[in-house]
Amino acid sequence: MTVDVPGGRPAALPTPGPGDPRLARLSLNQWTTRKWSVADAVAGCERAGIASIGLWREKVAQYGLEASARTVRAAGLRVSSLCRAFGFTAPDFDLDDARRAVDEAATLGTDCLVVVAGGIGSGSRDLAGARARLADRIGELEPHARAAGVRLALEPLHPMYCADRAVLSTLKQALDLAERWPVESVGVVVDTFHLWWDPEVFAQIARAGDRIAGYQVCDFLVPLPPDPLLGRGMMGDGVIDFRPLTAAVEAAGYRGDIEVEIFNADVWAADGDQVLATLIRRFVTEVR
Amino acid sequence: MTVDVPGGRPAALPTPGPGDPRLARLSLNQWTTRKWSVADAVAGCERAGIASIGLWREKVAQYGLEASARTVRAAGLRVSSLCRAFGFTAPDFDLDDARRAVDEAATLGTDCLVVVAGGIGSGSRDLAGARARLADRIGELEPHARAAGVRLALEPLHPMYCADRAVLSTLKQALDLAERWPVESVGVVVDTFHLWWDPEVFAQIARAGDRIAGYQVCDFLVPLPPDPLLGRGMMGDGVIDFRPLTAAVEAAGYRGDIEVEIFNADVWAADGDQVLATLIRRFVTEVR
Repeated sequence: MTVDVPGGRPAALPTPGPGDPRLARLSLNQWTTRKWSVADAVAGCERAGIASIGLWREKVAQYGLEASARTVRAAGLRVSSLCRAFGFTAPDFDLDDARRAVDEAATLGTDCLVVVAGGIGSGSRDLAGARARLADRIGELEPHARAAGVRLALEPLHPMYCADRAVLSTLKQALDLAERWPVESVGVVVDTFHLWWDPEVFAQIARAGDRIAGYQVCDFLVPLPPDPLLGRGMMGDGVIDFRPLTAAVEAAGYRGDIEVEIFNADVWAADGDQVLATLIRRFVTEVR
Repeated sequence: MTVDVPGGRPAALPTPGPGDPRLARLSLNQWTTRKWSVADAVAGCERAGIASIGLWREKVAQYGLEASARTVRAAGLRVSSLCRAFGFTAPDFDLDDARRAVDEAATLGTDCLVVVAGGIGSGSRDLAGARARLADRIGELEPHARAAGVRLALEPLHPMYCADRAVLSTLKQALDLAERWPVESVGVVVDTFHLWWDPEVFAQIARAGDRIAGYQVCDFLVPLPPDPLLGRGMMGDGVIDFRPLTAAVEAAGYRGDIEVEIFNADVWAADGDQVLATLIRRFVTEVR
């Protein structure tokens, strides 16, 4: 293949393959290859030489929890995270389901469960109340996570999603919340798409230190597509300057995997192996 | 009329009319009635009992600067602001045009010129560089503004516009910048749409004090429409709880006009007088 997808940029270099040391910390977040099952994604990683995968609960449920764990283990892949526990702000928050998410993370062999706060709730304007519920419920879930050896990785989402997806919008806010609990049980996710614009992002990454439980990369597209949820692009297709962010995360002490997580209709429509080849090249040219 | 536009909510109370003390500080930002010329908007304000108007340079240029100033003065309206000086981050920033904007504000009888930073520039990823250019150029423009008795009112825009419209995204960032110059010549705009999500917004409003040069209200719609620029709604149609924000702005010492500025295709398509009647009712029921 000589042409990237999507966007059609000529490939700047041959695709690094299995064993290339530059790929050692690259992880495929499986939502990037949304069409693929767990088994498809694991096989794709093996073909491409990607040693780590970020899993999603929906996909794991479809393939089966034990089967997913076995398949990943048999391939020798690390599991960089499990996405996600969600909806902590909802009046009917399901604590049992969140505990199951913790257990699933442990079964799958990852200590990182991504936590997405939830919005302010349909018909509500009580942002402060939603944030208070989020804090209370992290507190309710944390003992179970600690006992299971799983970290709750609080992910601040871009402020455009504050109302309907996450009342947690900045890294500062996520750290202010996380620091109520031990660093072993509550951390944060640094995601370039959500945080790149923040004038405080470098200072807060430095502050975060070993609270960083995950680092996710994808680009911010301009203009945004009609569905702003899908405004995430292949690295290099948008406006984010990744290397300074990667350097800051590493300077803060993070040595874990770097997940590529892209919500994008074109990427989802493309051939999965081609998407992996592109993201591998872009990882090398753009991210680290 | 018994039905609000847009959204179709029954009117909760009769429309307050001319002379109603609750409308004393209400200002129509004329982009809300985008179809209207300056003369149309002035006449609309007179019919509705609105004593203040926020003008836009494009509209003023169409109607003529002197004619606009005369028309507003003849109607006895205050001019709460002039929108806007733009594009401070552009490599080819037009300082002369920004100075003309200052002069136009003075001619129109307002001391508040809204400043929109501009984005990082097409093809660029140098966010820090764009922010540095913004600061440099405010510095270049400030002496002219000071001499003219016009304040440069720095408006932080929602982070979703960081790349293409404004690298100034939070009130904290705007204040950090504004404080390099005297409070008489550089202030900030508090706009509910842009700032409502910010966990720091109340603390920063309190900090802002007499830096607050303008207060603009409109709602944040969920979901956003396909063009995120038009996701602003009539107060009450979205997710923002206005009264605490209004109270914070007043507690900080702001006693100026409160502009209703709505970018919304439905509002723009509606009858102007009906829009004014609705925003007057919503101002009373939702904002203050």
